Amino acid sequence: MKWVVLVGSVRKGSFNAAVARALAGIAPEGVSVELLPSIAQLPIYDGDIEAAGIPDSVAQLATTVAAADALVIVTPEYNYSIPGGLKNAIDWLSRVPTKPLKGKPALIQSASMGVIGGARAQYHLRQVLVCLDMAVMNVPEVMVGGVHTKVTDGVLTDQGTLSFIEGQLAAFHDFVRKHKLAEGA
Amino acid sequence: MKWVVLVGSVRKGSFNAAVARALAGIAPEGVSVELLPSIAQLPIYDGDIEAAGIPDSVAQLATTVAAADALVIVTPEYNYSIPGGLKNAIDWLSRVPTKPLKGKPALIQSASMGVIGGARAQYHLRQVLVCLDMAVMNVPEVMVGGVHTKVTDGVLTDQGTLSFIEGQLAAFHDFVRKHKLAEGA
Amino acid sequence: MKWVVLVGSVRKGSFNAAVARALAGIAPEGVSVELLPSIAQLPIYDGDIEAAGIPDSVAQLATTVAAADALVIVTPEYNYSIPGGLKNAIDWLSRVPTKPLKGKPALIQSASMGVIGGARAQYHLRQVLVCLDMAVMNVPEVMVGGVHTKVTDGVLTDQGTLSFIEGQLAAFHDFVRKHKLAEGA
Amino acid sequence: MKWVVLVGSVRKGSFNAAVARALAGIAPEGVSVELLPSIAQLPIYDGDIEAAGIPDSVAQLATTVAAADALVIVTPEYNYSIPGGLKNAIDWLSRVPTKPLKGKPALIQSASMGVIGGARAQYHLRQVLVCLDMAVMNVPEVMVGGVHTKVTDGVLTDQGTLSFIEGQLAAFHDFVRKHKLAEGA
Repeated sequence: MKWVVLVGSVRKGSFNAAVARALAGIAPEGVSVELLPSIAQLPIYDGDIEAAGIPDSVAQLATTVAAADALVIVTPEYNYSIPGGLKNAIDWLSRVPTKPLKGKPALIQSASMGVIGGARAQYHLRQVLVCLDMAVMNVPEVMVGGVHTKVTDGVLTDQGTLSFIEGQLAAFHDFVRKHKLAEGA
Repeated sequence: MKWVVLVGSVRKGSFNAAVARALAGIAPEGVSVELLPSIAQLPIYDGDIEAAGIPDSVAQLATTVAAADALVIVTPEYNYSIPGGLKNAIDWLSRVPTKPLKGKPALIQSASMGVIGGARAQYHLRQVLVCLDMAVMNVPEVMVGGVHTKVTDGVLTDQGTLSFIEGQLAAFHDFVRKHKLAEGA
Repeated sequence: MKWVVLVGSVRKGSFNAAVARALAGIAPEGVSVELLPSIAQLPIYDGDIEAAGIPDSVAQLATTVAAADALVIVTPEYNYSIPGGLKNAIDWLSRVPTKPLKGKPALIQSASMGVIGGARAQYHLRQVLVCLDMAVMNVPEVMVGGVHTKVTDGVLTDQGTLSFIEGQLAAFHDFVRKHKLAEGA
Repeated sequence: MKWVVLVGSVRKGSFNAAVARALAGIAPEGVSVELLPSIAQLPIYDGDIEAAGIPDSVAQLATTVAAADALVIVTPEYNYSIPGGLKNAIDWLSRVPTKPLKGKPALIQSASMGVIGGARAQYHLRQVLVCLDMAVMNVPEVMVGGVHTKVTDGVLTDQGTLSFIEGQLAAFHDFVRKHKLAEGA
């Protein structure tokens, strides 16, 4: 089983990217986890660009997502909501005629330096994913607060956080497996 | 009094841009209304870019907004939320050290081809503007449904819609005036 | 298969109750649809009452919900959100130790006299149902605007609305069936 | 200046009620703070009851709120949203013909045993208060996490929390004062 990860932050030292990179090591056996290209490489969504043809960067992203069994989104919260760049990537994906997100199992994680851990971004993101008809797991939710104290040299090292996320990934594995069974039924 | 307008859509034939362009003609006497540059010219927000210096496009946008008496946001709804490009512009403005949005009076309008008129984008946007501590007018709300039937050759021609928006702008004029009085007190 | 319906409005002439009563006649073959008792019979949630024992009205509601294959919620929007009485019923159900809502398939419908059709209540409700770990169908969404023109003498008579809801119920039937298969896997 | 406080929780040992009772002691000089009657005394909102006449309990609540200079809401979060009982009280107040909430300055506080401190209830509440056209202060926001460790024998004793709330009340005092000046202008 292959999961792909969309990271909502762009900078090299991103704490959320550190969380995303940690997933491969704690994912259930038989699951490969691959980070998607940076959301910074996409243009701002523009219907005129779309009319001239879906950009290659979007098309390639869509193909990779479509081929995966599930999508994991790991994101900070910007101004009490979804980072614009992440939303822009999702907006583009929503316009690809093959609809790579429709019906796809999805998992949300967020991390922030504050105590709330990005919760506000998660609920806005959930509303977006209703529109896209994704199959989003409810609980457990991963909202990593104080993330700057849990990452060392770009590596998520906090054992409690790693264990909690490992549990979420195990639950998601079961969720995806059941979803595929149901869709095949 | 000078109001500036941020448009959440980029394409040339944007219905929301048509709404935005109509505002100057129906704004209260003594109010000039100026459209801000396209949100498409900003890069995707990246903390590394920020660390190297706020980009000129962001800095100029911030200066123009800071000099205005109020900000009007006219936006479509993308995937049940704020367009990524608009959120990206707001994310950048939130990082400018002079905080051009803080305490600024703000008005929200949305338009869509569907019946809901972009309402879902408006409430997500309101949550963002709480974070930025903007003074957002509550009511009346402008959510233009079926906008494709109300715009002709890029011009908002529906008289009912124009009259309703004119009423909202008059209310906002009063709101901004009171806000300035209070801040000066 | 048995579905139970929780109605968010209490008054006798409720338009949402009219929508709810229409469901039995357009549900897929083999599905019985039963309205739950009025939410008005429950006390305001109070932890001290709970500590003295779950009230009989709550316990009976919980038992009925637990025995059903799915829950349908049909509700108006009050003040841009969930009616307090409906939220109170959900709050009580969330406190019953057997957790009758956990994992249960759920469907949301709303109706209002305005054009937005109760959309704002639906998204708040969706956030609540994430917390309760319900399996909520995404789309199609039923938001009946101008409902007062579609109900005659307490009966939902608008054919377009009935057809659209019939389609949603068929999709939900498939959703519930798949959900049960997956859970049994 | 007189502020009234609506508490979203009913039980005698409520942590949020403890926060609410603490306000009088840390409010700015010249401000009296009075707790409103329990939300548990109101019936579930019912349009038929309303048609027969606003209940006395609602009418008295409305009169008290109308006479106050500002409303403070102190509430737990139930199932990721506003407690049903609190929303029910607000729904009733919204139906009183004198519109006691319209234009009234409002302040929100929440407390919970978890780390998020009731944030999700606050943003749903803010959306409701847009509808009611209240003048809600943006920041600073008070979300008291781990409240069970900060209340002793029904008294909010945590000095850090008390100081932070005291700062919020001072900011709100200024906010209400400016609002009244603007309205009188």
